[in-house]
Amino acid sequence: MTLVRTSRRMAPEQRRMHLLAAAIELYGTRPYEQVSIDDIAAAADVSRALFYRYFSGPTEIYVAALRFAADSLIARFAAPAEGPLVEQLRSLIEEFIAFAESHAMAFIALLRGGSVVATAETGAVVDDVRRHAVAEILARTGVGQPSPLALLTLNCWTAVVEGTTLTWLQERNLPREVLVNWLVDQLLAMVTATANYDADTATVIDTVVRP
Amino acid sequence: MTLVRTSRRMAPEQRRMHLLAAAIELYGTRPYEQVSIDDIAAAADVSRALFYRYFSGPTEIYVAALRFAADSLIARFAAPAEGPLVEQLRSLIEEFIAFAESHAMAFIALLRGGSVVATAETGAVVDDVRRHAVAEILARTGVGQPSPLALLTLNCWTAVVEGTTLTWLQERNLPREVLVNWLVDQLLAMVTATANYDADTATVIDTVVRP
Repeated sequence: MTLVRTSRRMAPEQRRMHLLAAAIELYGTRPYEQVSIDDIAAAADVSRALFYRYFSGPTEIYVAALRFAADSLIARFAAPAEGPLVEQLRSLIEEFIAFAESHAMAFIALLRGGSVVATAETGAVVDDVRRHAVAEILARTGVGQPSPLALLTLNCWTAVVEGTTLTWLQERNLPREVLVNWLVDQLLAMVTATANYDADTATVIDTVVRP
Repeated sequence: MTLVRTSRRMAPEQRRMHLLAAAIELYGTRPYEQVSIDDIAAAADVSRALFYRYFSGPTEIYVAALRFAADSLIARFAAPAEGPLVEQLRSLIEEFIAFAESHAMAFIALLRGGSVVATAETGAVVDDVRRHAVAEILARTGVGQPSPLALLTLNCWTAVVEGTTLTWLQERNLPREVLVNWLVDQLLAMVTATANYDADTATVIDTVVRP
């Protein structure tokens, strides 16, 4: 009842956020094509007509919800850097997996090939999250201008994290702790292999394994 | 002139293949949306009407061309296994990169997010190539039933190969030889990291590094 009363008194920006939050929750648990405008309006306790004052239709609210979720994830990546780099990395991975898990259906739909909701616009949001993840890791290791191979290694590893999380959400065939440790070890292994090709990466490895 | 005379006498299956070959060549050098039915008909030296006796339109010939190209690639993966496993692996990677290079525009369009041609059907063809690549590596190492982490490692590495090849085709910022060696080293590094988690993978590593 409190929720309903609050929602009736909302200012426009607050109302828009309320609709977005309702949509994000629905997309997390059901495939995009099974979430109707009526479902979102009902979850936000508003009329269909009111919904259309804020969003032109399902595509617009979906992209806005994705953008909002991506921004929250990016903000979590930028949490204060404390402790050894490997532990910071572990925290970033844990944040990412927790995020993916709380938006599981949307995460699976978006990143699995042939999704009905994957468009150039959603692709740009996903790319933006990838870029921020790589930039955050580079910033923490103190690398300003990474070499092509160092950048490639980090980009490949983010693809490994994505692909692994996608498989894990669908199959749940590994304990979460194993998944997190394995992803940390994969990055160290990949960066160590790259260090044989390039001095910059060798420096990063020094930084990362230094206590 | 010889080509024209030959093409006029073709049997239906031969004619279909001739159209497919023309389409594959065009898709390799131009984006899908810039290849018209007229372009394909002209390249194959047939009329537009004849084209439509074999294919219902651009989507059908595109998917058929992709399927044909994928099958050729899969056939190349299954080349006789000779020499040390690491050298076999290097050959597989070289085959893959040569293939991607000769179909560069199509490869980029298909694997880059937000492509207009990416559909559930093309996604299934791409998945099929991935599955065959992983199965081929497992077969050569003699692993029958891989553990979840061993399978995950191989799947992640195929994503690394794809992502790296995509970046390389677009930026060409590394010599081909470096790219190939780096990809071999990445697989060894990734599998070695996984070996700490699972005895099956440790056995594979033994097989791979054995001369």
